[in-house]
Amino acid sequence: MEDLLQNIQPILLMGPGPSCVAEASHAALSKPTLGHMDPYFFTIMDGIKDQLRQVFHTKNDMTFTISGTGSSGMETCFVNLIERGDKVLVLDNGAFGKRQQEVATRLGAEVDALDGEWGQPVLPEAVQQKLAAKKYDIVSIVHAETSTGVRSPVEEIAKLVKASGALFIVDCVTSLGCIPVTVDAWKADAVYSCSQKGLSCPPGLSPVTFSATAMAKVEGRKTKVPNWSLDLPLLKKYWEGSPRVYHHTAPANMYYALYAGLRSFLMEGEEKAFARQMTAHKQLVDGLTAMGLKLTVAEPCRLPVVNVVSIPDGVNDAEVRTRLLKEFQIEIGSGLGALAGKVWRIGLMGHTSRPENVTRLLNALKTILQ
Amino acid sequence: MEDLLQNIQPILLMGPGPSCVAEASHAALSKPTLGHMDPYFFTIMDGIKDQLRQVFHTKNDMTFTISGTGSSGMETCFVNLIERGDKVLVLDNGAFGKRQQEVATRLGAEVDALDGEWGQPVLPEAVQQKLAAKKYDIVSIVHAETSTGVRSPVEEIAKLVKASGALFIVDCVTSLGCIPVTVDAWKADAVYSCSQKGLSCPPGLSPVTFSATAMAKVEGRKTKVPNWSLDLPLLKKYWEGSPRVYHHTAPANMYYALYAGLRSFLMEGEEKAFARQMTAHKQLVDGLTAMGLKLTVAEPCRLPVVNVVSIPDGVNDAEVRTRLLKEFQIEIGSGLGALAGKVWRIGLMGHTSRPENVTRLLNALKTILQ
Repeated sequence: MEDLLQNIQPILLMGPGPSCVAEASHAALSKPTLGHMDPYFFTIMDGIKDQLRQVFHTKNDMTFTISGTGSSGMETCFVNLIERGDKVLVLDNGAFGKRQQEVATRLGAEVDALDGEWGQPVLPEAVQQKLAAKKYDIVSIVHAETSTGVRSPVEEIAKLVKASGALFIVDCVTSLGCIPVTVDAWKADAVYSCSQKGLSCPPGLSPVTFSATAMAKVEGRKTKVPNWSLDLPLLKKYWEGSPRVYHHTAPANMYYALYAGLRSFLMEGEEKAFARQMTAHKQLVDGLTAMGLKLTVAEPCRLPVVNVVSIPDGVNDAEVRTRLLKEFQIEIGSGLGALAGKVWRIGLMGHTSRPENVTRLLNALKTILQ
Repeated sequence: MEDLLQNIQPILLMGPGPSCVAEASHAALSKPTLGHMDPYFFTIMDGIKDQLRQVFHTKNDMTFTISGTGSSGMETCFVNLIERGDKVLVLDNGAFGKRQQEVATRLGAEVDALDGEWGQPVLPEAVQQKLAAKKYDIVSIVHAETSTGVRSPVEEIAKLVKASGALFIVDCVTSLGCIPVTVDAWKADAVYSCSQKGLSCPPGLSPVTFSATAMAKVEGRKTKVPNWSLDLPLLKKYWEGSPRVYHHTAPANMYYALYAGLRSFLMEGEEKAFARQMTAHKQLVDGLTAMGLKLTVAEPCRLPVVNVVSIPDGVNDAEVRTRLLKEFQIEIGSGLGALAGKVWRIGLMGHTSRPENVTRLLNALKTILQ
């Protein structure tokens, strides 16, 4: 009987996630599986919480990981905080802002969007206008838009949102571990991220954190959270209860990988990790520029970790990506939504950000494009 | 900086899941992470689908894995099939039947329950009466109640449910890989299971399968599925689309482990795997009986893979389980809900079912109880 796993080639992951997995995180996957109610497993869960609080820069009690991918983390934030009819404003400037609208609308919220331009950050003045015109229960934003490679000024926008009295949901899927994420300084109420980008763990988990204000809203809901598997009060009993109360069977080996990935990140130190990613970004930009390729995003709001590059006229998008993958074992990302076929997205997140990786990609691109 | 992972001890997992992980599945976790849009990753996903169809005994196109634990699989079945106000009948005889009611109620269904006795199977005559008294859109059951160690006669009940015109949801979390699960013969419409029990993979994934009738209901919904992250039409585009359409970042390493666990199971052959588990069950029952311990469930409906044992008078539940874990590195399960403190649950699922494991547990129990 054929074993397809025998033919997996190691690929240099330079798309917009997953990124290269940190060695310690990869090794941790192989530790023996513990039961989800084993006291020592609870110790490891506590270790995950402690480390996540450091990475998120928060003191929030409810800082833990959802046992699912980033999409589950997003769903968790919206489904717990929205009650039917709540007024939600999505500060939208890309594919993941569109996704937030879709999620919130399906949950029965009354959703407005601030329609930002793709490739531009969300503008604080525009947010101010929207907030002055209508009172919202919840405002959400994407910190780092993976679809366009743009960073929005969350610190500035947070002040406006909090002054309006709304709860503030922030998507940090592509920012956590890549650029500063300071949850308590922002006074953000619900933040979700993922394991497979800046944290350099395998994909599959979604770190989240909730403020006391958010938890008060959840605990005071008029109706139960319409999603048993992502219900925060039940998850709280499992992560924080004394005694712990069974909710679901936690994916032990994935938790190990997250624990180890967080530990690697904290041991390197975030200043160093951010600097390493910035250095790789500069090396990439210099190399691309020398080849005549152009980045689409202007520097002040350009993310160092998702580099969106215009595909030159006459170059076949799919063909280049296929050759990179087949001949050079390098993955880069295609454009999403309106940008499909027009751009490539080159990821330099977490452990992918090494000079030798950038050099390898630049050489491969040169060979293919010349 | 302390590394908590260094102190993980290998534990013999004899609770009601997770079970011991098959060697090939454990090894597969360490294969290099591929991107979720890598063509070779799609080949592996196709391999998972093919193998799951064999294990579920179904030809259903929509046979795949949810990227989350068994609870997500349950949520997926209910959230996609229920529209607000749908009439749902839960055939309840234990903790997981209660959970189905909770899930369905939160989703806005009008939920009735057939309240069965804990420790007894769901009775076809009682189902017949309920179905004669009221017309239901959906009927759900738990094939193997993990809380009580009871198997219900799904094949017989399926005929009644299908004759009534209702959609039929079956929880096969503790039956898949342990006792025959024959989705097409049952004509079941939505079935969910998990990776960490009969399939002997690490916890974290939930195999599911949906009939054409179920998919027709989902695709003809009046309102969108109120859960973006578990939306079947979107998941279908990712698992079945040509071209595949991105939905979420699949947990690649967990998919490898599932692929390898399914392959191990199919290479052993389900007849052999079922027989091995039955042999271990008999060995356990003989040993427990010789020690004067009693199983709570009568033989015709007793699950071989979750053995529910009465805790003798004067014996401290928690103390025995703690000693088993600390002194003998063996995990068994406590009682759930009404059975807490009254029973132990000894799992003999998948790779846990080996004569040497049963002997090790029996010897440890003898030492502790004598």
